[in-house]
Amino acid sequence: MSVPSASYSVTMRVTLENHSRIGAVTTAVGDAGGAVTALDVVDPNGSGMTIDLTCNAVDEGHSELLRAAVEVVDGARVIAMSDRTFLLHLGGTISVEPKVALKTRDDLSMAYTPGVARISMAIAKDPSAARKLTIKRNTVAVVTDGSAVLGLGNIGPEAALPVMEGKALLFKRFAGIDAWPVCLATQDVDEIVRIVQCIAPVYGGINLEDISAPRCFEIERRLRELLDIPVFHDDQHGTAIVVFAALLNALRVVGKELKDVRVVVLGVGAAGVAISKLLLKEGVGDVIGINRGGIISPSDERLDTERRWLASHTNKEKRTGSLSDAMAGADVFIGVSGSNLVSEDHLKSMAPHSIVFALANPDPEVDPVVARRYAAVVATGRSDEPNQINNVLVFPGIFRGMLNAGAKQVTEEIEVAAGRAIADVVTPGELSADYIVPTVFNPLVVTAVTNAVERLVGQTH
Amino acid sequence: MSVPSASYSVTMRVTLENHSRIGAVTTAVGDAGGAVTALDVVDPNGSGMTIDLTCNAVDEGHSELLRAAVEVVDGARVIAMSDRTFLLHLGGTISVEPKVALKTRDDLSMAYTPGVARISMAIAKDPSAARKLTIKRNTVAVVTDGSAVLGLGNIGPEAALPVMEGKALLFKRFAGIDAWPVCLATQDVDEIVRIVQCIAPVYGGINLEDISAPRCFEIERRLRELLDIPVFHDDQHGTAIVVFAALLNALRVVGKELKDVRVVVLGVGAAGVAISKLLLKEGVGDVIGINRGGIISPSDERLDTERRWLASHTNKEKRTGSLSDAMAGADVFIGVSGSNLVSEDHLKSMAPHSIVFALANPDPEVDPVVARRYAAVVATGRSDEPNQINNVLVFPGIFRGMLNAGAKQVTEEIEVAAGRAIADVVTPGELSADYIVPTVFNPLVVTAVTNAVERLVGQTH
Repeated sequence: MSVPSASYSVTMRVTLENHSRIGAVTTAVGDAGGAVTALDVVDPNGSGMTIDLTCNAVDEGHSELLRAAVEVVDGARVIAMSDRTFLLHLGGTISVEPKVALKTRDDLSMAYTPGVARISMAIAKDPSAARKLTIKRNTVAVVTDGSAVLGLGNIGPEAALPVMEGKALLFKRFAGIDAWPVCLATQDVDEIVRIVQCIAPVYGGINLEDISAPRCFEIERRLRELLDIPVFHDDQHGTAIVVFAALLNALRVVGKELKDVRVVVLGVGAAGVAISKLLLKEGVGDVIGINRGGIISPSDERLDTERRWLASHTNKEKRTGSLSDAMAGADVFIGVSGSNLVSEDHLKSMAPHSIVFALANPDPEVDPVVARRYAAVVATGRSDEPNQINNVLVFPGIFRGMLNAGAKQVTEEIEVAAGRAIADVVTPGELSADYIVPTVFNPLVVTAVTNAVERLVGQTH
Repeated sequence: MSVPSASYSVTMRVTLENHSRIGAVTTAVGDAGGAVTALDVVDPNGSGMTIDLTCNAVDEGHSELLRAAVEVVDGARVIAMSDRTFLLHLGGTISVEPKVALKTRDDLSMAYTPGVARISMAIAKDPSAARKLTIKRNTVAVVTDGSAVLGLGNIGPEAALPVMEGKALLFKRFAGIDAWPVCLATQDVDEIVRIVQCIAPVYGGINLEDISAPRCFEIERRLRELLDIPVFHDDQHGTAIVVFAALLNALRVVGKELKDVRVVVLGVGAAGVAISKLLLKEGVGDVIGINRGGIISPSDERLDTERRWLASHTNKEKRTGSLSDAMAGADVFIGVSGSNLVSEDHLKSMAPHSIVFALANPDPEVDPVVARRYAAVVATGRSDEPNQINNVLVFPGIFRGMLNAGAKQVTEEIEVAAGRAIADVVTPGELSADYIVPTVFNPLVVTAVTNAVERLVGQTH
């Protein structure tokens, strides 16, 4: 399923002996499997010219092939090639900016000493004033220990930083929230809990990110007990909420009720556990959780508390065995595991009008083209397929709503409200098997989630 | 010494029955001891008008008096009054901003998933790439535990936050550095050291701020041993460097050499210790340190390691007693203590052509007007007096230079180079008893310090 993408795009600076060679160059890129996305003339001097040719490749090796393909065009020479993704990340992708100009001494004396002492004293007298007079009101920490970064595994805090910067970008872009990366050089649960507790004064919320299971469960639980600001592990709850939203609409498409369906969840890591718990809370017919050892069982001594709880609150029929045993007759498949784990036989064995969410990234549990032959609704995490299930639909709005309302904690009610709000952005007229969730750039999403969360927190305060 | 200042400025919205009353209103403010700094007509309707009157007061009580003074003007009514310093700090003074636009899916796929995974993998393979591909290159943590905030004392991390935001503003304004507040809800030395060590991956430098002595000494020493990025306690070294710079020029004014002068340092807290050590390192004639108990002595069991070291490396004549005993015949007085501790008799007893730096904030050890009767050069920390000795001259440039050069630690050589660079911004033609340090808005300062530090680090790498 490898297609040329912006992730692997390059810009080549090419000199041409004659401007009529432009066509030959773009053709060469296309013939080599690349996709030209932009062409800028840098220097149209004399009979020849210099151009910047931007094209998408499949991977890094492929971009070298594209370069070679251009080089062999008669009269063309590549004088430089830059990788656009690396270029974009040079020096990082976020900055800290002043909200007030410091032009005069008077500005200095209000923003800093001596005037700032008055603000400090006001907060010392009334700590709740920090939410009004400091960045705390609009600021979220994006906390990771680098133990489970994207699909890359335990790559550590430095390598996790570009991802956390990207997350901060999304927080600002979609919800106007100031988010700051906190990449910790420790993977000890006690230390992480204590550190987050100690840095919390600056923040109005904590977004835990890319922390491996089962450590993430304990870290989140303990921080929720200790802190008076919302603590939200996005890999768990962000995923659970958007899956819940997508499932609500998929069920509408196939005309089934949540209480009647049996859901197979493949992969009971952070996301799988959270999805299962949210569905149980909302009264799903049944869930069957599966990990590498097969259907999880409450008698399995190797399971941690979290998964043991899950095993004993799911699987009403006490099925045992492998994925095949779980899939037979299931209404819904939700994969948060790895690529190509689901076969055509698995799909065939499901109940009529089945729903398949194959969310493994970058390559889903089953090719969606194949899945669509058997399932009524298919969704993935991919941006080049319909029904992209993406946390970006959730975390900006849910934090925006919680910050606006001054929420002290995340509750399951908030999560459910957020999920329903996302589902309802898709109108009955728009709803179809290929449109069960709004796209990430739909501006109605963040507003809908924010309002739903703010209203709910306002009621319970 | 209380004069109206921007720190206590207010804006009153005033309705006037007749626009001819404007003069009466501004006169009323002036008669009540306020200073009108701006007048804006908000609504010039009919015969009357509405104006916004901005004026500086002496303190909060005084601004209420100014309001009352306007209220009694015939035909004038104050309909609202806002405190400009509080207004400026509403919602905090810094924000996190994107350095790249996220307009299209392609932007998303390069800044975030899936493209960002390539950046993460590049750093996982070569951790030093984090300085190139993340915010680490230009980012400094401003770390406090809220134990010694300005002159306000132990007011805690929330109340310290506006000060750290202000510091971040200065870092950006004067040196283009992204600084982020880290306000810790712990005052345990071991915890602070461990936390800063764990959050360090995101940062290219650590600025310790407003941490009380003697804890600050141990925290800094241990962090310098643990981290491969510069750790700089500004209250110690920022102050020491700018004092050193000012002293170099003051000595030029009076025609004395550093090696020949005896310096009295009143207050051996964080700043006093660092000033003394830097002067010793640069070959000062002698230093006498004084705390609340009088001249410090190496036999004093109550002193911590840092002050005991200082006591045994200073005071060659083994003087004992009070400030009077230290001041007799001294060439230089440096006060980093509290207000009004130095008398006219103290000043009279100093050597001819004496130098007095009375740096206690907001009120110095001695009124500079009085000090000038006896001393050849007088400096304070005040912005309304000549010779303002202010850390803002130091920390932006020294961090800029260290970040540019990829410095792994701060050395005494860097501190000395920074001090000499600040002193040399004042040309021989400009130098006078009333101009021994450049003003904070002089753009040559940060460039001079940056270049000096960068050159030095470049040589030693």
